[in-house]
Amino acid sequence: MKRQRIQELLKESKTEQQVLVCGWVRTKRESRHCTFIELSDGSCQKTLQLVADPDCAAYAGLKQLLTGCALKAWGTLKESPAKGQSRELHLEGFEVLGLSDQSYPLQKKGHSLEFLREIAHLRPRTNTFGAVFRVRDAIAQEVHRFFRQRGFLWAHTPILTASDCEGAGELFRVSTHRDPSHAQASSAEETQSEFFGRAAHLTVSGQLEAECMAMSLGQVYTFGPTFRAENSNTSRHLAEFWMVEPEVAFADLPEIMTLAEDFIRALVAAVLKECPDELAFFEKMYRNIRISELETLASETFARISYTDAIALLKDGAKKTRFEFQPEWGADLQTEHERFLSETVFGKPVIVHDYPKDIKAFYMRLNDDMRTVAAMDVLVPGLGELIGGSQREERLGHLEARMKEMEIPTQDLQWYLDLRRFGTAPHAGFGMGFERMVMYLTGMQNIRDSILCPRTPKSIHF
Amino acid sequence: MKRQRIQELLKESKTEQQVLVCGWVRTKRESRHCTFIELSDGSCQKTLQLVADPDCAAYAGLKQLLTGCALKAWGTLKESPAKGQSRELHLEGFEVLGLSDQSYPLQKKGHSLEFLREIAHLRPRTNTFGAVFRVRDAIAQEVHRFFRQRGFLWAHTPILTASDCEGAGELFRVSTHRDPSHAQASSAEETQSEFFGRAAHLTVSGQLEAECMAMSLGQVYTFGPTFRAENSNTSRHLAEFWMVEPEVAFADLPEIMTLAEDFIRALVAAVLKECPDELAFFEKMYRNIRISELETLASETFARISYTDAIALLKDGAKKTRFEFQPEWGADLQTEHERFLSETVFGKPVIVHDYPKDIKAFYMRLNDDMRTVAAMDVLVPGLGELIGGSQREERLGHLEARMKEMEIPTQDLQWYLDLRRFGTAPHAGFGMGFERMVMYLTGMQNIRDSILCPRTPKSIHF
Repeated sequence: MKRQRIQELLKESKTEQQVLVCGWVRTKRESRHCTFIELSDGSCQKTLQLVADPDCAAYAGLKQLLTGCALKAWGTLKESPAKGQSRELHLEGFEVLGLSDQSYPLQKKGHSLEFLREIAHLRPRTNTFGAVFRVRDAIAQEVHRFFRQRGFLWAHTPILTASDCEGAGELFRVSTHRDPSHAQASSAEETQSEFFGRAAHLTVSGQLEAECMAMSLGQVYTFGPTFRAENSNTSRHLAEFWMVEPEVAFADLPEIMTLAEDFIRALVAAVLKECPDELAFFEKMYRNIRISELETLASETFARISYTDAIALLKDGAKKTRFEFQPEWGADLQTEHERFLSETVFGKPVIVHDYPKDIKAFYMRLNDDMRTVAAMDVLVPGLGELIGGSQREERLGHLEARMKEMEIPTQDLQWYLDLRRFGTAPHAGFGMGFERMVMYLTGMQNIRDSILCPRTPKSIHF
Repeated sequence: MKRQRIQELLKESKTEQQVLVCGWVRTKRESRHCTFIELSDGSCQKTLQLVADPDCAAYAGLKQLLTGCALKAWGTLKESPAKGQSRELHLEGFEVLGLSDQSYPLQKKGHSLEFLREIAHLRPRTNTFGAVFRVRDAIAQEVHRFFRQRGFLWAHTPILTASDCEGAGELFRVSTHRDPSHAQASSAEETQSEFFGRAAHLTVSGQLEAECMAMSLGQVYTFGPTFRAENSNTSRHLAEFWMVEPEVAFADLPEIMTLAEDFIRALVAAVLKECPDELAFFEKMYRNIRISELETLASETFARISYTDAIALLKDGAKKTRFEFQPEWGADLQTEHERFLSETVFGKPVIVHDYPKDIKAFYMRLNDDMRTVAAMDVLVPGLGELIGGSQREERLGHLEARMKEMEIPTQDLQWYLDLRRFGTAPHAGFGMGFERMVMYLTGMQNIRDSILCPRTPKSIHF
């Protein structure tokens, strides 16, 4: 008999048939007349109830089964009389695949998220992290479906790079020198002996390489890991995190704003459709999301406002609201400002566009006012900035001038300038931190709880 | 007017309508009566022909258009009388987005693949690399579709890791110490000051972490970059390459062999369906693939043979064929052996299974004969090994004994052993080097031509 997954069995219309299932014991409960086992196989949020009658041949063997034990079980699938479940399995036999014991860290009682981080390799076995990873997968799959439908190609941009995209970040350096004390040689010799013949780093963004692809293949997106060596131990930063970065040739800022809006709505709609049980679980257990609010978000148009107008609104707001930082034209928006705009002023996501050039990256397109660039951020209630994007500076002269102004060395970026030398064209794109979206849709408050193996300062367990 | 993509326009049933298109000039040809421009926007292998009549207002402006120039063009879409194209655009006006000049490296003449590697940032603008990246995308999208349909979750396993999965490879070391001469301190102090508090490396495989996910969520796959610091400058090795690694709880070796077979067939079928023009281009221009052979591959059952039987066949074959290496039980199969089996003996893909334990990794399941492990390789004619996989050792005692035998330190892998301590179960998986598949389906002979930014010793341009 072929094993079936619990997700399928719970939807199976044909009851009274023999089925085989494999999974892990979540709980076992003995009543006077029966033993009930809740079995999970990770295929869905729900468990399958195994019902064992004292008359059944396998009954005696149930004694040894503790939480965490792996089983192969068979019997008759029946309609369940119990509330909240459609099917149950009347046990006829089972085989223990792997026992568990009292030292298994995930006993029946609830565990704090902090404790679960210490056993990150086992936490996918909990209701919470099973749900997190199914939601994460649903979002990830929708990323591909969304762009695929619109004719985008998935661009595999490099992790190892010689250039520093943002000109900003703290970089991880990569080397094959296993013994650091080797490095007593001079810096020049050191570089010579490097695997790549020069210093290599982990990428902070695939954007620049994605621009190569867009300026030939039209529309592409990246979706992969990126890195920041910032020594900030907050609930919102990881050293290794996933980014989604579409890049569109011939697009201007308004077009990319619309794309960002459509994208967010599509991701939210996909999770609503594919993970109703998981969302219900998060709403009930953690109370940081509301399904009704997500449904609204999936259908509503976002507000749009220029940075300059936003500052005016914030200055006005400052008369009634106490900001820690006074809003001032030329300064970056603080989280309190972003939340005021999206939560208090608009009560929905808002796209702020055309920021002062001095607070933005070198590759953003200078507007005709010579003070602002064609940049945009999508701010979401309860979260803050989810997406940042821009139209790219496609004019060679403007780009070179800006790089000089910002003291960005051009010799390593000649390839990037070539895109402007030969057949340049307007193009635009944005980036979304993937874990931010996972946090938003699960309500997890710490980014460490949105990914299997969180990498943070002093933390690289398994 | 909204711009349309050339892929759509060539399929557009409604001709005689006004359309707008953006793209890059591939060629311009002036006849006595007309000027013809082949425009590419990367959306498909084909170009759109723009036909400009000397009477049209825009005619004079065409002079400045050289190969590589970026255009916005509009006019009437018409049925084309020319062979090999269904539609053409009768030009009414255009706007130059970005000029090109004589120094543009991609002039009309053909270029060697070696030359194109030196301008890797521009090569996606060629027919060859446009086709490579569209095929690469089609395979990548099918990877997700294939596993998604079967209820697998995409597992995002870490790039940064403290463990060395294979116990084998040359590792890249990651650090935040930007100045290597800093490292005059003792090794212990050095480690203390590391970002992660200990040595960190780039992963060689996501398998071990994928096992965590499988042993809770049932069936998962990884799809992302992996790294080898091997100093081998061959046409088959990259320092950074993409891997696909499914991992299935409760599966044994035969089940994973069937999955591998289904997987390869699905990828081939997807490319046949989605990229007919690209495949026709490769078949005609490079002659390393045959579409008819791919069609056969997409439908046929693979052969299966044990390593022991394969050695017997090879010894027999050695009587007639000259092998550089004599086949011998206990030694790994050489490429010449793999090709002999798949090309000469079976004439189709063959799965070799149950290899001697001493030539395989520590995590593979020991067979009852105590000499072999439940490993398998998929060998493909014209390519050699495409997939390697195994049933994993799920028995704690056996795994610990094997690790001791192979001198693999267990202290860093306690988390991995925990999967065997608590509710262990049979599970199996495999890995496919993604670029190998891209090479196989495009006929590209050098792995550097299967990825945008190839990373090899001494080479990390952009």
